[in-house]
Amino acid sequence: MSQSFTLRPIGFVGSPFKSTSDVPRGLGAQHQAEGELKILPEFELGLTDIEGFSHLYVIWAFDRSEGYELLGKPPTDDREHGVFATRSPYRPNPIAITTVELIGREGPVLYVRGVDMLDGTAILDIKPYLSSIPMEKLKRGWLAEAEARKKG
Amino acid sequence: MSQSFTLRPIGFVGSPFKSTSDVPRGLGAQHQAEGELKILPEFELGLTDIEGFSHLYVIWAFDRSEGYELLGKPPTDDREHGVFATRSPYRPNPIAITTVELIGREGPVLYVRGVDMLDGTAILDIKPYLSSIPMEKLKRGWLAEAEARKKG
Repeated sequence: MSQSFTLRPIGFVGSPFKSTSDVPRGLGAQHQAEGELKILPEFELGLTDIEGFSHLYVIWAFDRSEGYELLGKPPTDDREHGVFATRSPYRPNPIAITTVELIGREGPVLYVRGVDMLDGTAILDIKPYLSSIPMEKLKRGWLAEAEARKKG
Repeated sequence: MSQSFTLRPIGFVGSPFKSTSDVPRGLGAQHQAEGELKILPEFELGLTDIEGFSHLYVIWAFDRSEGYELLGKPPTDDREHGVFATRSPYRPNPIAITTVELIGREGPVLYVRGVDMLDGTAILDIKPYLSSIPMEKLKRGWLAEAEARKKG
């Protein structure tokens, strides 16, 4: 395929995590860390009315991972799974999504809870979180099985 | 910023929608259309164990939109909002997320419900949908206000 897409940062994350080993991982990991989404001044107008949303999708780049693995063991399991069935950073396209809670805004800076990015990570896009799949309709595949094995 | 990221398709969408006017839009639009995520053979191994998940995030490219608008009127409102507070295709980085329900799989093809992409759209990534924000905790900003005005 000759088709390709070139993306550039719209801003950068301010995070307490300086290296990957700082980020909580594995079963039961809590993501309550607070951080900032520092949007570049040229894009600030695009944040208009974002304060009304409680939760946002942040799309960001795994800018410190190299290459990809189609099969790998996630930190939440001791078995291998396909990369598209995990959130592994070693993906064909190194893109991540994190859902964060919006706490506040000062100009081009969004204060959020739930960051799992490293400090300085490139932000590619922000979108409002508009609706949820009800938990009773959600099947969580190998992750639910790994959780059940851990409890059992 | 000189930093940039080049992404390539991991597959293409099979969709009943041939042009943007075919895609349901606006308040109350239902997204129940069925389609296929046709993953390229070289990435098929990355789908291992995906069948266990009921819902997936599909990250895809707005490959038929040009340029961006920091403020715009979405089809769900008659007022302008910032691009990062909407799902507008005219974004600094033309990336979209759609949550789909996984119905089945045949080799490199995923059959899904809830497509809102055009036929032939480039898929950039697929991730499992692992958890939801409870609806009672979700604030939906201008969209909730537009819905209330429509009902009122």
